[in-house]
Amino acid sequence: MLFIYSGVQVPLDEVRTNPEHLKMLEEWLRSYRSEELFDEHGTLHQEIADVAPKGNLRIGMNAHANGGLLLRPLSLPDFWQYAIDVAEPGRKEVSATYVLGTYLRDVMKENLATRNFRVFGPDETASNRLQAIYAVSGKRWDAAYESVDENLTPDGRVLEVLSENLCEGWLEGYILTGRHGLFSCYEAFIHIVDSMFNQHAKWLQECRTLPWRKPIASLNYLLSSHVWRQDHNGFSHQDPGFIDHVATKKSEIVRIYLPPDANTLLSVAEHCLRSRNYINLIIAGKQLAPVWLGMEAAVRHVVSGLGKWEWASNDGEGEASDPDVVLACAGDVPTLETLAAVTVLRDWEPGLRVRVVNIVDLFTLETNDQHLHGINHADFDRLFTTTKPVIFAFHGYPALIHKLTYERKNHDNFHVHGSRDEGTTTTPFDMTVLNGLDRYSLALDALRHVPRCQARVPEFEQRYFEMMQKHKLFVSEYGEDLPEIRDWKWSPSGTSQPVRADTPTDAEIDTGADQ
Amino acid sequence: MLFIYSGVQVPLDEVRTNPEHLKMLEEWLRSYRSEELFDEHGTLHQEIADVAPKGNLRIGMNAHANGGLLLRPLSLPDFWQYAIDVAEPGRKEVSATYVLGTYLRDVMKENLATRNFRVFGPDETASNRLQAIYAVSGKRWDAAYESVDENLTPDGRVLEVLSENLCEGWLEGYILTGRHGLFSCYEAFIHIVDSMFNQHAKWLQECRTLPWRKPIASLNYLLSSHVWRQDHNGFSHQDPGFIDHVATKKSEIVRIYLPPDANTLLSVAEHCLRSRNYINLIIAGKQLAPVWLGMEAAVRHVVSGLGKWEWASNDGEGEASDPDVVLACAGDVPTLETLAAVTVLRDWEPGLRVRVVNIVDLFTLETNDQHLHGINHADFDRLFTTTKPVIFAFHGYPALIHKLTYERKNHDNFHVHGSRDEGTTTTPFDMTVLNGLDRYSLALDALRHVPRCQARVPEFEQRYFEMMQKHKLFVSEYGEDLPEIRDWKWSPSGTSQPVRADTPTDAEIDTGADQ
Repeated sequence: MLFIYSGVQVPLDEVRTNPEHLKMLEEWLRSYRSEELFDEHGTLHQEIADVAPKGNLRIGMNAHANGGLLLRPLSLPDFWQYAIDVAEPGRKEVSATYVLGTYLRDVMKENLATRNFRVFGPDETASNRLQAIYAVSGKRWDAAYESVDENLTPDGRVLEVLSENLCEGWLEGYILTGRHGLFSCYEAFIHIVDSMFNQHAKWLQECRTLPWRKPIASLNYLLSSHVWRQDHNGFSHQDPGFIDHVATKKSEIVRIYLPPDANTLLSVAEHCLRSRNYINLIIAGKQLAPVWLGMEAAVRHVVSGLGKWEWASNDGEGEASDPDVVLACAGDVPTLETLAAVTVLRDWEPGLRVRVVNIVDLFTLETNDQHLHGINHADFDRLFTTTKPVIFAFHGYPALIHKLTYERKNHDNFHVHGSRDEGTTTTPFDMTVLNGLDRYSLALDALRHVPRCQARVPEFEQRYFEMMQKHKLFVSEYGEDLPEIRDWKWSPSGTSQPVRADTPTDAEIDTGADQ
Repeated sequence: MLFIYSGVQVPLDEVRTNPEHLKMLEEWLRSYRSEELFDEHGTLHQEIADVAPKGNLRIGMNAHANGGLLLRPLSLPDFWQYAIDVAEPGRKEVSATYVLGTYLRDVMKENLATRNFRVFGPDETASNRLQAIYAVSGKRWDAAYESVDENLTPDGRVLEVLSENLCEGWLEGYILTGRHGLFSCYEAFIHIVDSMFNQHAKWLQECRTLPWRKPIASLNYLLSSHVWRQDHNGFSHQDPGFIDHVATKKSEIVRIYLPPDANTLLSVAEHCLRSRNYINLIIAGKQLAPVWLGMEAAVRHVVSGLGKWEWASNDGEGEASDPDVVLACAGDVPTLETLAAVTVLRDWEPGLRVRVVNIVDLFTLETNDQHLHGINHADFDRLFTTTKPVIFAFHGYPALIHKLTYERKNHDNFHVHGSRDEGTTTTPFDMTVLNGLDRYSLALDALRHVPRCQARVPEFEQRYFEMMQKHKLFVSEYGEDLPEIRDWKWSPSGTSQPVRADTPTDAEIDTGADQ
């Protein structure tokens, strides 16, 4: 078998039909003088074969080309230490990535001696609220220092450069040579590395077929400053499509996590830092946001990947459960809007039986033969029912949920709300309104799909439009959200009236830079 | 209403709670001495207002910032002149992009005087078979010339540089300032500009809301050297995911075309060059491939965007039509495999009634309220039936078809074959086998889903596996496809036995560089 191959051009492509090409090919091949290299049976002469290095001297056996050989597992602090105490779901507000930063600070500390952990980012480490890390290791800086400089050190283990391509390339090289790391990036800008992500995914895919390649640390992305919170940035910073890009790759390689709060984020991050040979995509907000689950519940939720939140549902428990509608949510802002929608529904239609399902690990939605994390059909049908409407609030583009669930029995009843690529520099709640992800749109859509509520839909629509009008007028006059939106808090029962939040502690509020 | 805004940092973020911050804000704002600028009613003093330029002197009225003002429509030659004559479907083989190149050559020629058309590409113009253009205008080159140089000229209107980012940026700037162009690129590498594509799509979306912005030429992508033909390139060159990326954007902005042959490509390209304010994605192969439709049929097909190919179907015509199975296809290689599957089915199950539907304009699959090009439900149901299995052969990742069709009545019966991200440097047919897109997989899947064929499925599976074994053995021994695969030609009836192709004319074979 003979291939004529060139990475750039095929110089002789008419060998079969053009005798002149054939002659040139023959001359070219004969120029290697194969008769000097091989014996009459076509076997390479032993003295030539002996020239090639053997064993560990072979180029592919260089440990830096097989980084798994050098890999030392990270020493990881107990992430429960960083947990936010949750007496009641959603009463306390923290910046999830700030809390993660305190954990990463100690990951950095515990592995300073082995020098095998780094954090990469395009000048956004502090903006993404990970600045606690600087207490242990600064940003690497080898040039002159000025008096206004902060957190720069010659041996800093945080690498910042305003090039997503460089960050990605550095991190890939770092983990391919046996180390560990995390790339934190604004969600909108991560598309810059789509093509590099592809190459790394392909590399990992091929490596799975080579048993001598030892596992390497996973490539971990933390996307923050995400599409739903663009109070200071405009339309140009808004795009949740990296999830879609990641979801096109082989299920053996990719994992997508949308932790709904700080505690689930801690659990997800620890899991990702321990994992091998994956590409983990974590999306989490940096703004103050409610903590829904105590640490024990958070860990259980992350291990399951998805589940019913009994405390937010009123459809009965276990076998006796019988919802009128399932409100599903994936992502921190969608979870907030979904829980607020539950309280709106209490006002509008008190008798409605609502089940709340939250999804942390997106691939649990796929079938088990599409993705290892996919739950089986019986569990899926139990969770989402086979006949009831599912109003799904999603962080990204709605179509992805349809794509992940199209083999499920109830998928015709999935009504997904997510990004419609609408946005501007506006308030947090107005971003959800612009895209139909807000609590009122979710509540209205739920009622529209419950048969026994049909007659009253015009009345609900009236309430919806009155609310929208009030919201729009307030936002355009004051540039911030209505007090009843801003101050809304989850309550175990009763209506959607605002309740003041607990005052967050200093450690929970980030007073640092904002972008 | 007051916004404190900074593109990078928010310097005073505690104005509400920290009196010192409030004082600093006050000092800062007072430093503008607003009392000198405004009168007691808050109106700007007239002599200051008069400083601002008026009318066309305003910066936004610079014609280069509103390129549509400068836009001159291209003078386009009649594309019928370049049509390939089709006496019988699929007997003649041409390189579709080579044929397109002859048309683009004359587009270049007709617009040389107005200097408002350019072709951009990362050193792939010839590799993508568009080299006919060089007869009219070469590649722009301003430095020294050497004897081996070809097609370089100081005023060349083809811009080649091995940076997809530069090509994209240049083309964007070129059309934003009122000119026209085309970006030709390897499919695998176009992900490099994902983020830039996003920005241009967002720009177009915003411009739609500004009536004073005049329409500009569309941003046209031609992706060739696509995922299915990688005889000389390996796994790293294989990725059809740009379609998915484009499909996440607003339906008002994006168009995706998968012309199945040279004539449909001509019609699509002419349409795209005439269009305004869109991003057009065209995917077309450069290798020799069958021409299925004469020019008149091609134009009709492109105008419809999709349709039944009566000449390839045997399910009866019009109202009397009653297929056992619908074979749908989008993309040149999927179309080839689908038509070959029809002939396989003639061998395996001669009585089977098969309908062939081809899709050129991918968004016709969406509902009319999702995308303007979406066909209505009645037409969709007539074409794809509401109960019969649809075996869909798709150029890209299968999930996209599920995403586009999930609101259609028959979508549960859609079984999509497409890229599974499997590949290597191998034969054209083996690429389809690796991903389950080959004619035998399609035929077997069709039979598996036709109720009355159930009893014989084990027999069909046996034939399928025997064929696969034969194929794998031949490919690994000879490094090329089985003669019955290579030489397969469509025949209006009878079996899948090979027939020699018509000999293509010189103009139809590209003897140029291959990559």
